[in-house]
Amino acid sequence: MSVTKEIVVLPGDGIGPEVTREAVNVLETVCKRHGYKLKTRSFDVGGASIDRYGRPLTEKALEACKEVPAVLLGAVGGDKWNEEPKDKRPEAALLGLRKELGLFANLRPITTHQSLIHSSPLKEEIVNGVDILILRELTGGIYFGRPRFIEQTSAGERGVDTLAYETHEIERIAHKAFEMATDRNRKVTSVDKSNVLDSSRLWRRTVIDSASQWPEISLSHMLVDNCAMQLIRDPKQFDVILTGNMFGDILSDAAAMITGSIGMLPSASIGEKYAMYEPVHGSAPDIAGQNKANPLAAIASIALMCRYSLDMPEAAQEIEDAIQATLQDGFRTGDIASNPSKEYLVDTSEMGSAVLKHLNP
Amino acid sequence: MSVTKEIVVLPGDGIGPEVTREAVNVLETVCKRHGYKLKTRSFDVGGASIDRYGRPLTEKALEACKEVPAVLLGAVGGDKWNEEPKDKRPEAALLGLRKELGLFANLRPITTHQSLIHSSPLKEEIVNGVDILILRELTGGIYFGRPRFIEQTSAGERGVDTLAYETHEIERIAHKAFEMATDRNRKVTSVDKSNVLDSSRLWRRTVIDSASQWPEISLSHMLVDNCAMQLIRDPKQFDVILTGNMFGDILSDAAAMITGSIGMLPSASIGEKYAMYEPVHGSAPDIAGQNKANPLAAIASIALMCRYSLDMPEAAQEIEDAIQATLQDGFRTGDIASNPSKEYLVDTSEMGSAVLKHLNP
Ligand SMILES: CC(C)[C@H](C(=O)O)[C@@H](O)C(=O)O
Ligand SMILES: CC(C)[C@H](C(=O)O)[C@@H](O)C(=O)O
Repeated sequence: MSVTKEIVVLPGDGIGPEVTREAVNVLETVCKRHGYKLKTRSFDVGGASIDRYGRPLTEKALEACKEVPAVLLGAVGGDKWNEEPKDKRPEAALLGLRKELGLFANLRPITTHQSLIHSSPLKEEIVNGVDILILRELTGGIYFGRPRFIEQTSAGERGVDTLAYETHEIERIAHKAFEMATDRNRKVTSVDKSNVLDSSRLWRRTVIDSASQWPEISLSHMLVDNCAMQLIRDPKQFDVILTGNMFGDILSDAAAMITGSIGMLPSASIGEKYAMYEPVHGSAPDIAGQNKANPLAAIASIALMCRYSLDMPEAAQEIEDAIQATLQDGFRTGDIASNPSKEYLVDTSEMGSAVLKHLNP
Repeated sequence: MSVTKEIVVLPGDGIGPEVTREAVNVLETVCKRHGYKLKTRSFDVGGASIDRYGRPLTEKALEACKEVPAVLLGAVGGDKWNEEPKDKRPEAALLGLRKELGLFANLRPITTHQSLIHSSPLKEEIVNGVDILILRELTGGIYFGRPRFIEQTSAGERGVDTLAYETHEIERIAHKAFEMATDRNRKVTSVDKSNVLDSSRLWRRTVIDSASQWPEISLSHMLVDNCAMQLIRDPKQFDVILTGNMFGDILSDAAAMITGSIGMLPSASIGEKYAMYEPVHGSAPDIAGQNKANPLAAIASIALMCRYSLDMPEAAQEIEDAIQATLQDGFRTGDIASNPSKEYLVDTSEMGSAVLKHLNP
């Protein structure tokens, strides 16, 4: 087994560089602890790359990502680049990385932290104990379907997008969902709009077919509008939610909000060969460069990286435990602070150090 | 001015017949009170029509709907018909009515009732006072775009749907939103996914252009994933939400759930010539025929009908006040009951009569 773990870091924009710095420190520490050397290379991406190279993702950065098993991305975007044409905007880097690296499975674990639960807009009894894994298809559907265009018509213009799914795309994400559910509560809810969409009818039929290889999984189906309601009404009913690219985009943000822990949530985007890890939160330009950002979502993304790409499942657990312990100690960045008399308000680097202490006692 | 008000009633399936019966009684009463005669004709639709005529919507029912200014629909659907092919399922009646009657604007007022607010999954301070009008485009977008098909490929199958919007479709729903906002708080939030979709870019640009004729309206734009979060985080920030067919389907169900009053919410679907009114809730086959269903959403739909189609704005207000008063009196059907010591548990017809008493004191 290799003694070196190698990753690429794409700090990106806004608070991206600050939070990835702390996350890399954590990875460094667990690598050392488990007898590995860590090698990292860093590249601009998003707005930072636009400013320097005139485009959001360079060939060089992309090639580097293909030489390692895992990429850590901070965040991309900011008002500064909002007026750029679509293929020159920071988000184009995200879509490009997903497609070029074949990251077809987006994993968003939605869990609550007991000590933060009061900051949910939902009642405590509704969210306490929520533990959902949203599995969103990430390289197909309406995000990438062709044709897509805006054309002149006799009466004005017409804008068109195409939502397309092929059997093999649905099968591979379905099998991923069943695989993930096997290590959890064995319940998969597949979400579609099969009462209206042809692509959803194929989706549902294919998911049902794929499930025959997973007899221990209990599979059910839910329409996307109902799922949006059920996530709010009773999120605890869900274990693994399996869905397409666009529905997954909407539902995972809704689900993130119900926990009250949006600044805490990590994500993993996984393909056959490569993988990318990033915090769910955005680039937060308003607090960028002020050492105020919460690095815990980026650090939690490192835990997922250890579990799914670096073959370090113990390190993953240690990091998650360390985050938990740090919160229990009362450390809070501004975004998750609520009770000054029982908490210690810390900055980005202090929060990172607090986690490190639990890893390096 | 005509002394007769004429409508078509499509009771539909499940609890549809029970709740529309109470709603028609209410309309009868306000008509009498304001010096009108009410004429109604009733037709099967949805599963009821499938059972009788082999299809969810007959030519005869459709033609009748075109002879009146307003249609009241109960609910359609039920497990019984779920295995039918798509154009023979109850929902096909809904889609057919929307398209054939040109009902391009779906209005979903999302309001809270002080006396029911505790049943929201959200904290009281988040939902108290919510008053949103969701305006969903209803005859375009991915619901009706062509091509749509499932085809064989060399490796399996491919399912395709088309999301298309034309300038004139966006303009007319945008103007409707601005018009509605003029009588409210003059804030319109247009929701799209313009960082990914071409149709959304046209949507946003067209909405901005249309807004130039409405200088007193404050227009902003929000991405659909963010809107799903913001509806949960702070629904009070919204006044009118303007969006496309698919996004509107998802967001309006999420918004309905946050109020805790889903059994209370009415809707209106409005076109150039025709209009249809229906409660937001479904056909609830489990309690059908038991005189248990809550008729207040159907009755509230009659209020919208009086306001938007029957030129009886005073009657609309009287009905809404009567619903409010009935709740304050403590009358509750099972779905909204919570405190037996302070409430009177009533059945469908008793609830209808309780509302009538306030209209006919
Ligand atoms: C930035 C945007 C293109 C992206 C998406 O829609 O996928 C984001 O919302 C996400 O969920 O990662
Ligand atoms: C039944 C279904 C076709 C319909 C829709 O998706 O429009 C329903 O969800 C609604 O919102 O009225």
